[in-house]
Amino acid sequence: MRAVDIIEKKRDGKELSPAEINFIVHGFTRGEVADYQMSALLMAIFLRGMSHQEIIALTHEMLHSGIVMDLSHLNRPRIDKHSTGGVGDKTSLVIAPVVAAAGISVPMISGRALGHSGGTLDKLEAIPGFRVNLSLAEYRRTLDQIGVALIGQTAEIAPADKQLYALRDVTATVPCQPLMAASIMSKKMAEGITGLVLDVKTGSGAFMQQEADAIALAKIMLGIAAGLHTDAVALVTDMNQPLGVAIGNALEVMEAFDTLKGKGPQDFNTLCRELSAEMLLMGRAAENIERARALYDEMISSGQAVDKMRQIIETQHGNPQVLDDYQLLPQAQNQTAVLAQQTGYVQMINTAAIGQASMLLGAGRLRLDTQIDFGVGVMMNAKLGDKVDQGAPLLTLHFNAASQVEEASAIINAAYQIGEARLEPPALIKTVLR
Amino acid sequence: MRAVDIIEKKRDGKELSPAEINFIVHGFTRGEVADYQMSALLMAIFLRGMSHQEIIALTHEMLHSGIVMDLSHLNRPRIDKHSTGGVGDKTSLVIAPVVAAAGISVPMISGRALGHSGGTLDKLEAIPGFRVNLSLAEYRRTLDQIGVALIGQTAEIAPADKQLYALRDVTATVPCQPLMAASIMSKKMAEGITGLVLDVKTGSGAFMQQEADAIALAKIMLGIAAGLHTDAVALVTDMNQPLGVAIGNALEVMEAFDTLKGKGPQDFNTLCRELSAEMLLMGRAAENIERARALYDEMISSGQAVDKMRQIIETQHGNPQVLDDYQLLPQAQNQTAVLAQQTGYVQMINTAAIGQASMLLGAGRLRLDTQIDFGVGVMMNAKLGDKVDQGAPLLTLHFNAASQVEEASAIINAAYQIGEARLEPPALIKTVLR
Repeated sequence: MRAVDIIEKKRDGKELSPAEINFIVHGFTRGEVADYQMSALLMAIFLRGMSHQEIIALTHEMLHSGIVMDLSHLNRPRIDKHSTGGVGDKTSLVIAPVVAAAGISVPMISGRALGHSGGTLDKLEAIPGFRVNLSLAEYRRTLDQIGVALIGQTAEIAPADKQLYALRDVTATVPCQPLMAASIMSKKMAEGITGLVLDVKTGSGAFMQQEADAIALAKIMLGIAAGLHTDAVALVTDMNQPLGVAIGNALEVMEAFDTLKGKGPQDFNTLCRELSAEMLLMGRAAENIERARALYDEMISSGQAVDKMRQIIETQHGNPQVLDDYQLLPQAQNQTAVLAQQTGYVQMINTAAIGQASMLLGAGRLRLDTQIDFGVGVMMNAKLGDKVDQGAPLLTLHFNAASQVEEASAIINAAYQIGEARLEPPALIKTVLR
Repeated sequence: MRAVDIIEKKRDGKELSPAEINFIVHGFTRGEVADYQMSALLMAIFLRGMSHQEIIALTHEMLHSGIVMDLSHLNRPRIDKHSTGGVGDKTSLVIAPVVAAAGISVPMISGRALGHSGGTLDKLEAIPGFRVNLSLAEYRRTLDQIGVALIGQTAEIAPADKQLYALRDVTATVPCQPLMAASIMSKKMAEGITGLVLDVKTGSGAFMQQEADAIALAKIMLGIAAGLHTDAVALVTDMNQPLGVAIGNALEVMEAFDTLKGKGPQDFNTLCRELSAEMLLMGRAAENIERARALYDEMISSGQAVDKMRQIIETQHGNPQVLDDYQLLPQAQNQTAVLAQQTGYVQMINTAAIGQASMLLGAGRLRLDTQIDFGVGVMMNAKLGDKVDQGAPLLTLHFNAASQVEEASAIINAAYQIGEARLEPPALIKTVLR
């Protein structure tokens, strides 16, 4: 078998066999297939697409390029959630303790912030002492102890994906649905899960601005899960405005804690409730979706969710007192409001721009090596459909260095569209694909 | 400017600007654009195509990646011929001396054999002592002295093409007309020519089996020539059977010498005459094509063409006595005939297979580092439309090592289609594009 023949086959729109995909992926990770051959193949895949069988084979090979955790000794359902990323999306910090509190294992390997979108790991690291860089042995031990672990990608998990992503990033082959789906699913499958709930975002702050693209990606991922014998469900959800009101790491941690205590923003709580209910249903902790939602409510109202969060923080070396005293979290030194320039209703929000403004203040990273300022961020004062008066705050910047405030304010002002008519805000849950 | 943005643009089917093409080609040759980025771009070009303006810009940048010879001091037309390659195509060995004898400069930088197709340089090297690896200074001096020089590619000529071709070869991006045309034209333009006659082959022994593809490639090359202000004409010619009867380096040299003496095979002489006439017309050595053909005939019949060939061989360090005594050329030790297995007319010849059989005997190279055996090859006894009797020779193998004879014979038997009906052989010159 030769790499050039496999490239030619895909170039001509033909279907690659599982053996050919095996040859390419393993040859690439072993350095036998050159990066310039892989990048030509990636471009051919971008422009020619991949069949259902090809995508399953690709995911399978990427998954088995590294360690696949076997957590079967836990003897209970192991369910994770994956979101395609957005602005203000701190659902993992609520879902993981809620679902674990209800007796389902939650093995969760998450990512970091990049560009306008935040990352679960950075949010967790805003908690003083919290360690996300656990080894796989520690990950397994934590799951054994408390039924949940929140860690970062390790070098042993799907190394082919890491190598492939680095190449895609510099060859304009990132936004390719088969490659995106295989990347996500290979990492998630390696966690040791029995089921996965997918939150596929669409809208102005999402990777997929068009709902049709989000649905297409969701269907590919569900196809992979079915092909690899893993339960999965996908919620296509709205990202035409930030989720909740907090954007920025410590600010989002506080909002997640509030939500665990039953006093979070309504939209954010609703999404956490729906995603958790799907996980609980998949894990057979409830008979139907209504009972699963009631179980979520119960975990919150009884305090079990907060208790589980306390346990998580303790076990992962953080200071659990932050749950009671938010002053222990990093705080920005300064605040300033961005004011509405006219009276009217908020009709549209360029959500990616809000994420970028927050990143500019230091909450995110433009490049992988940017240092994050955990205390800074943005608090939303007005969301879609809200009435605002000229001069009233649209949102509040929490910042330390003043140097980026002017640019962030300008970006935010341009991101809000205010008009005379009140437009109905988009539905939060657009569709559920099973 | 960033390479990834340029790749993305082409990926999405947009037209690259001359500045972007400059950035990419020069960045690549300087090592600033990575080979994995260039290969992704090459695949995007393969699948998305290139506009007329893009192809001209690409050729221009490849051309100017190295030395562009200035031969204007010669003060006369400088015309070369380029063939897209075939089996038994030794036209350069006739055309160069004929056209130079008629007073036109012929600066000719040629290639080597690869795969089933032969190469002018290898044929010339079958002449004892003949040197094709002249420096560009020697090339210039030879042109000054005798009005013609036959040399190989040097590292100074279009180095971007060499680097690009090496990458295309391993990334399945060779058969891409815009890239092929830019590759050919950038090298030819660098020779210092004022005009170029293109022989674009089509048929079972050609790179382009379909005539429509050959015409398309010819048109792209003519477009480049026009864009870069160089005279050009393209003949689309038949390669559904080997040209002449000799295939193999020394065998082809003898056939070329015979043709220079007016006793070559009719089809081969006809093609040499047409190509030479176009060069003579382009160089204004004749007023019209009929007079140009008559001038070709005159150069042959007067002995001036043979004299010029003698001068070329002498000047390039070869032994000119080979023109009078073919025994001085390398000879294979053995001959064996491949016999017709049935009586009938030769209806079809898989010409690439004949080239492959000759290569197997040692006349060509499968890889760039294969050593060529100059004496071996194939002599055709039956061509398209010929009647053959069962047991009569289809062709004769000239070989040294017996080990490859069986496989070569089998390939040749499978390459001939003999049937009851006599089919009209295809026209040699299919179309002339100006």
